[in-house]
Amino acid sequence: MKSNFKISYPGSEKVYVQGTIHPEIKVGMRKVNQMPTVSIKNGERIEMPNPSIYIYDTSGPYSDDHATIDIEKGLPHLREPWIRQRAENDKENVCQMYYAKQGIITPEMEYVSIRENMNCKELGIETHITPEFVCKEVAEGRAVIPANINHPESEPMIIGRNFLTKINTNIGNSATSSSIEEEVEKAIWSSKWGGDTLMDLSTGPNIHETREWILRNSPVPVGTVPIYQAMEKVNGKAEDLNWEIFRDILIEQCEQGVDYFTIHCGIRLKNIMLAANRLTGIVSRGGSIISRWCQIHQKESFLYEHFDDICDIVARYDVALSLGDGLRPGSIHDANDEAQFAELDTMGGLVEKAWAKNVQVFIEGPGHVPMHKIKENMERQIEKCHNAPFYTLGPLVTDIAPGYDHITSAIGAAQIGWLGTAMLCYVTPKEHLALPDKEDVRNGVIAFKLAAHAADLAKQHPGAIVRDNALSKARYEFRWKDQFNLSLDPEKALEYYKTSNNVGGKYCTMCGPNFCAMKISHTLCDE
Amino acid sequence: MKSNFKISYPGSEKVYVQGTIHPEIKVGMRKVNQMPTVSIKNGERIEMPNPSIYIYDTSGPYSDDHATIDIEKGLPHLREPWIRQRAENDKENVCQMYYAKQGIITPEMEYVSIRENMNCKELGIETHITPEFVCKEVAEGRAVIPANINHPESEPMIIGRNFLTKINTNIGNSATSSSIEEEVEKAIWSSKWGGDTLMDLSTGPNIHETREWILRNSPVPVGTVPIYQAMEKVNGKAEDLNWEIFRDILIEQCEQGVDYFTIHCGIRLKNIMLAANRLTGIVSRGGSIISRWCQIHQKESFLYEHFDDICDIVARYDVALSLGDGLRPGSIHDANDEAQFAELDTMGGLVEKAWAKNVQVFIEGPGHVPMHKIKENMERQIEKCHNAPFYTLGPLVTDIAPGYDHITSAIGAAQIGWLGTAMLCYVTPKEHLALPDKEDVRNGVIAFKLAAHAADLAKQHPGAIVRDNALSKARYEFRWKDQFNLSLDPEKALEYYKTSNNVGGKYCTMCGPNFCAMKISHTLCDE
Repeated sequence: MKSNFKISYPGSEKVYVQGTIHPEIKVGMRKVNQMPTVSIKNGERIEMPNPSIYIYDTSGPYSDDHATIDIEKGLPHLREPWIRQRAENDKENVCQMYYAKQGIITPEMEYVSIRENMNCKELGIETHITPEFVCKEVAEGRAVIPANINHPESEPMIIGRNFLTKINTNIGNSATSSSIEEEVEKAIWSSKWGGDTLMDLSTGPNIHETREWILRNSPVPVGTVPIYQAMEKVNGKAEDLNWEIFRDILIEQCEQGVDYFTIHCGIRLKNIMLAANRLTGIVSRGGSIISRWCQIHQKESFLYEHFDDICDIVARYDVALSLGDGLRPGSIHDANDEAQFAELDTMGGLVEKAWAKNVQVFIEGPGHVPMHKIKENMERQIEKCHNAPFYTLGPLVTDIAPGYDHITSAIGAAQIGWLGTAMLCYVTPKEHLALPDKEDVRNGVIAFKLAAHAADLAKQHPGAIVRDNALSKARYEFRWKDQFNLSLDPEKALEYYKTSNNVGGKYCTMCGPNFCAMKISHTLCDE
Repeated sequence: MKSNFKISYPGSEKVYVQGTIHPEIKVGMRKVNQMPTVSIKNGERIEMPNPSIYIYDTSGPYSDDHATIDIEKGLPHLREPWIRQRAENDKENVCQMYYAKQGIITPEMEYVSIRENMNCKELGIETHITPEFVCKEVAEGRAVIPANINHPESEPMIIGRNFLTKINTNIGNSATSSSIEEEVEKAIWSSKWGGDTLMDLSTGPNIHETREWILRNSPVPVGTVPIYQAMEKVNGKAEDLNWEIFRDILIEQCEQGVDYFTIHCGIRLKNIMLAANRLTGIVSRGGSIISRWCQIHQKESFLYEHFDDICDIVARYDVALSLGDGLRPGSIHDANDEAQFAELDTMGGLVEKAWAKNVQVFIEGPGHVPMHKIKENMERQIEKCHNAPFYTLGPLVTDIAPGYDHITSAIGAAQIGWLGTAMLCYVTPKEHLALPDKEDVRNGVIAFKLAAHAADLAKQHPGAIVRDNALSKARYEFRWKDQFNLSLDPEKALEYYKTSNNVGGKYCTMCGPNFCAMKISHTLCDE
């Protein structure tokens, strides 16, 4: 496997911020250094410095010039000493929620508090996100830090509606496509553009091996849908699935280091037929498999029946649960229907069971939802699921744009993020059509990063506006490089800019030299 | 100039619906014919027909197999007999608003009422959009039909919040780029993808000639910003502008057939300095030019002072006015500030003056606005501008994504469209960076078509959901071709689909044959 996986961001350096409670922690950040603002007054050149801007950095050691990257060996074990220390002090429990309930601030909690407050200290911005606040949010289940003790390579991050809105990237091969190398490349690529977590949805051959490569080289938490691997074990025959097969795979993946599992345990036998009159039936892969199992055996699924056992297993590794919405609507027509909300109610009951065992849990949401029905989704989820974080796919606000569903879903994602969804599952332009390639992953990640950031601005997250203000100031002052360096995709911005005939010019590339509004506007201020 | 400008849509035919009040009118529509739903019951093949779906069609004669297209000669004069008839009956006035106030339903009004009710008659959907309703909306200024008597080539369309949400495409060259041929190609290209109106924002050489080619070949209303041509006349020196120069250009463009003018007449001398403390000053080209003029001459602009004269001129041609928001915010930081809202208040007063002269008018809006500040924009506009239609640029919900601003703006556009904005001005991926090429125009138009449609779904426009339902049913039944034919961009959907290894397969291309949720879901319903 090739090894040139280094990531670099133009005009940026990798810096680390040390912990206070836990001085051994070092939180990696991207620091963008800006050019000064230059003006001429009375024939004299005056330079006013512009502050460096810190950017939340998901790229891990890949963007550290001093780090040695070796895909064969995997990333360094950042969290290992913290995990070992806890094991020595307290042999009973490894769960973040267990410590949080006792008011103990783990290194992971302090880490995320530093990470969430980008630019606040430097610019004197007030923030509510202290380590104590993180601890309380985790204790009360409003936020989740997915952190399997067997994935010490991952950098702690938090999912909760009082924190920065996160995005998840789906990768993974199917029976008909792509190699392990391609998937590892996509995983690192996703981290480069800002993916906060990564789901490996492989269904093809070599599931275990693909996942191993991804886990050992992923600086972000990794999720899976274990039922996919279980299906491989029974040669695709849903009816042959059973608890024992599923349990063994769960343990296998916990041992490997998966940080969170999507499990469709909210499907009840009695609710399946609620989807019978739908336009698009059941569009969740896991949901359709479990529904079929229930129907053939005419009983409750082994996932629902064994939910306590599932919690007991994952609690030994501090793997978080993502309760999969097997009955999510797959079309505008089916949004907010009885089937969907019946499953949500079931999940609410399961949340309390998980918390009783210190298992961190969040809830997956739709799907396809028109804008006027989005709010009801969020409000019901908060109410029925007792404030557990919401993690939505989109939602897509119309069905009519295959090829552009990263946009239909970014529209819904920005809205539901503003209303309180903690993590947005990205959608690529190939949704409904084919598996994404690297360029699709990039387009999906950026569309969702901007939607998440728009949500953070609307929620007035401390310091979120700093980056917008810095970029806009650079734009107004024709500091083109600073503008690009501060943008979500500096490479794309530069590429487009170069198509104009104005590289380095003191006027807008759209307006031309004689019609530039910003140029004229400067003359207004000078006079 | 080359002439192979024919437009074809796969699986579609061009049909015409005749008027009732005015039997001479024929409204062009795109009719998508679907395959039947096939199932096997007891070994027998059963075919259930699926209805044809009508799609709002902005492509004019270009998509009519029987039409002869000759760019040199221009399009046929669809509206000429109606205009002639009115001239014979009533020598006094040519304005749609004049007739509307008297309760007279013009052919243009019946035309748009037929156009807005796509699929309603065929599928028995109730609709409030009758010719009488159109007439009332125009009379009361809530809706505008831009239709210069000298642009008889254009097909009537309506802009108002009780109608389908429209989108505008900006094209036009600047001093540094592109030829007339390229711009005409972009104009037709925009019509193909669904652009409802077209603004020619050329600032370079050959403004008049470029516009002539565009007008003679555009089946949709064309707008301009006349101050750009005025600036060419004074060699780019804003201070040399005056009423006489502007008036002559206005008349020239009225004579040529421009359907609406963006005029920045809401800028008052006393309000300019409100923008002084902004992060990004004045970002509207017209706004910056007029502000500079006011500041140099220390008086109210000739546009504000001569607003009545402007109305008198445009009323002779039934050109609509788009009151330009010269002080729109150019960054998240500057959204909803005093400068912006002071201009909106001014425009409210001008609306009433225009209506008194039967001039149709709409109001331009921002710009860059974070999501939580969008609603205030819409509510203030409705209140201060007496229900005149709102026409917004985006808004962009974050500043940090140059290269992806078609998405940041589609997010804001969908929201403000749902809240009541009547027309959305598209933004392309090159916004802030360079002028768009053809592919950028396509990406911008589709992003805004989907945002507008999402708004129509949320507003529950009669029949808007028909297309989503039909496409989703086709998707669920693996009628891939029908799915693509019904989509906003059939070519792109097909192109992406072909990258999968499953052309024609009865399973999702993302899931592969053994994991397809929809395939499994079908087995649930069959049992």
